[in-house]
Amino acid sequence: MELTEIGERARRTAYLLNTMGPDQKNRGLSAAAEAILGGSAEILKANEQDVLTARKKGVKEGLIDRLTLTEERIVAMAEGIRQVAALDDPVGEFISMKPRPNGLLIGQKRVPLGVIGIIYEARPNVTADAFALCFKAGNAVILKGGSDAVFSNKAIVSRIRQGLNSAGLPCDTVQLIESTDRETTQRFMRMNGYLDVLIPRGGAGLIRSVVENSTVPVIETGTGNCHIYVDESADFDMALDIIFNAKTQRIGVCNACESLVVHRAIAGRFLPLLKKRLDEKNVEIRADEAACGMVDGLVAATEADWGTEYLDYIVSLKLVDSVDEAIGHINRYNTKHSEAIITSDYANAQKFLNEVDAAAVYVNASTRFTDGNEFGFGAEIGISTQKLHARGPMGLRELTTTKYVIYGSGQVRG
Amino acid sequence: MELTEIGERARRTAYLLNTMGPDQKNRGLSAAAEAILGGSAEILKANEQDVLTARKKGVKEGLIDRLTLTEERIVAMAEGIRQVAALDDPVGEFISMKPRPNGLLIGQKRVPLGVIGIIYEARPNVTADAFALCFKAGNAVILKGGSDAVFSNKAIVSRIRQGLNSAGLPCDTVQLIESTDRETTQRFMRMNGYLDVLIPRGGAGLIRSVVENSTVPVIETGTGNCHIYVDESADFDMALDIIFNAKTQRIGVCNACESLVVHRAIAGRFLPLLKKRLDEKNVEIRADEAACGMVDGLVAATEADWGTEYLDYIVSLKLVDSVDEAIGHINRYNTKHSEAIITSDYANAQKFLNEVDAAAVYVNASTRFTDGNEFGFGAEIGISTQKLHARGPMGLRELTTTKYVIYGSGQVRG
Repeated sequence: MELTEIGERARRTAYLLNTMGPDQKNRGLSAAAEAILGGSAEILKANEQDVLTARKKGVKEGLIDRLTLTEERIVAMAEGIRQVAALDDPVGEFISMKPRPNGLLIGQKRVPLGVIGIIYEARPNVTADAFALCFKAGNAVILKGGSDAVFSNKAIVSRIRQGLNSAGLPCDTVQLIESTDRETTQRFMRMNGYLDVLIPRGGAGLIRSVVENSTVPVIETGTGNCHIYVDESADFDMALDIIFNAKTQRIGVCNACESLVVHRAIAGRFLPLLKKRLDEKNVEIRADEAACGMVDGLVAATEADWGTEYLDYIVSLKLVDSVDEAIGHINRYNTKHSEAIITSDYANAQKFLNEVDAAAVYVNASTRFTDGNEFGFGAEIGISTQKLHARGPMGLRELTTTKYVIYGSGQVRG
Repeated sequence: MELTEIGERARRTAYLLNTMGPDQKNRGLSAAAEAILGGSAEILKANEQDVLTARKKGVKEGLIDRLTLTEERIVAMAEGIRQVAALDDPVGEFISMKPRPNGLLIGQKRVPLGVIGIIYEARPNVTADAFALCFKAGNAVILKGGSDAVFSNKAIVSRIRQGLNSAGLPCDTVQLIESTDRETTQRFMRMNGYLDVLIPRGGAGLIRSVVENSTVPVIETGTGNCHIYVDESADFDMALDIIFNAKTQRIGVCNACESLVVHRAIAGRFLPLLKKRLDEKNVEIRADEAACGMVDGLVAATEADWGTEYLDYIVSLKLVDSVDEAIGHINRYNTKHSEAIITSDYANAQKFLNEVDAAAVYVNASTRFTDGNEFGFGAEIGISTQKLHARGPMGLRELTTTKYVIYGSGQVRG
């Protein structure tokens, strides 16, 4: 099908979705979950085909793991859709409603964005996940998944559409672009007038490509070069626990810690303890010259290290003389994702919260908490690292916009 | 100065602005207003140079009028800055603050966007206006004005910077890109990492160019193909007053009415009255075949008319058989700006408000009210016709973003 035809169908469906209440939408989500469970054999078969092709192409094991579906993962996928159904519907709420002196009553109402495009890599679970969140917020969604998952995605979308259909709901709510060539992707990113927003989900390369090539408004999700600053007044045990958690609990995620900043006055005592703790997971520490001189076994950092998101058992380390220097270093090299200070000093805590420029700034907690579930949103479509529209974990509310609704009685402008 | 140097200065200044309270910022705005008044002779002289060059180039009178400054316009410019000082500071407010079961206290705080780029045409008043709004919301601003106003803009920015300097505030808060060649503009639109957002202000061509070429997030302001639908149950006098106001009170603005949709059942009685009323201002009516057959003096519309923003004494007119057909027509051809229904039917009013896709939807009032002042925001940077971040008139609040601020006590993720 032509892209413009897909776009037209999505637009038409978006107008229908806009008028649906939570009950209808939840019925659609239940039916989609059922249909996925009922079609698990079909989905697994399609997925086998993708995995086989990927192995032949020599795709790395980590990626194969993300691509592979199992009976359990399909159950989890359906369960995820049901969890979204249980969330509050953000649509229709009036954020404000005020009369003006001329008698106009001006309200601001939360409404769906309209048509959302999602570009992602070879993770078939994103297919079900993105559909559920977009649908619950009243949006039509056009999915453009990675070529390595094309059979899996087709099977999943086909089952969701069957489910919607059986519930008497419009199946063009979710459409998959099956063509995976570069030119189609380029055209997809320029579908202004059809797409209201484009959300890339994947690695830094994918996101950069979408930001650079899209003419449709983009919500940049993303890379996290997250820092933890250990202040002079930090409780060492707390600092070690938080760093260990943020660095090693899950290394491949955007809210993992990638860089440590330590106050020079405590470095002589703190660094040996830190080295010992991180040795438990064989974390390589790439440190500045002064730090390397204080404890054995550190690796000399280069300028490039300060800006690197390792997603690995590696962390950079820099010594500073003050909280101000720490804030300056972080604001220079961070990716505006999540940053933490470990301190027992009230003024330094407040200063760090005020002056560090990031989506989420923490005192005495792990950066790993930047997550829609942990923030209490129930689910997330991604973590925005840009400043427009949404910043930080994006839940259902971030998949809506507002419109002004004005009740008049014949007013004209003088 | 190199663009990257301008960007670096803006970023550094943005960190300072982020920590300033309303008193400091208001002092800066007062000083800037004073400096503009004190430098009016210098500004007028620079403006004369621009006007002279524009006349030599054969620029149209309408544009020359927008370019030309007078003593009164300079006073109005300074007054505009003072009015912004009087508005509430949106920065620092916590939108929410909630504890999580694990004891984390998660707040969402309103903070400045950071660095805002403004691209505009030859209207020197935008220079002062954009500075004031961006500054009050705590942002550094980089201005890229039209080449026809380059001397005026340099003089105005120079005075504002002197004012800020005299108040002990960082003058790199506002910087002007003096080079007006195309290549500089192209590079400006790709300054990711320096600019947090780019706002184009001007005609449809400028806005399209920014949307198509920018890799920085854009807030699209803009064109308005605004409709008024006259329902079967409309009060004719009210409908005529509102249409006359929305079409003719000011023709060159984005919230002016460009298209009428009339219920067929009343067309025979309503169209002659409409023709007579619009004849007072010699408004040309481009109508569909059925309407042309009902009253003399209408011009046959073509398909192109339905999508045209005339900004002139012209309006298109289409007959429909129902409110549903009216909504369908509007959603197909509008630019998502402002739309109105004139009706005395409760259900049709609610249906129109719910189903029309636009930034502002009116019952029984003129579309001309879509404006920051009329909405009670005190001032506006433009009217957003996109759905991300801001929709409709954008005041100070829309020049901010949020960040999550998290108070912990040693929490790690399990």
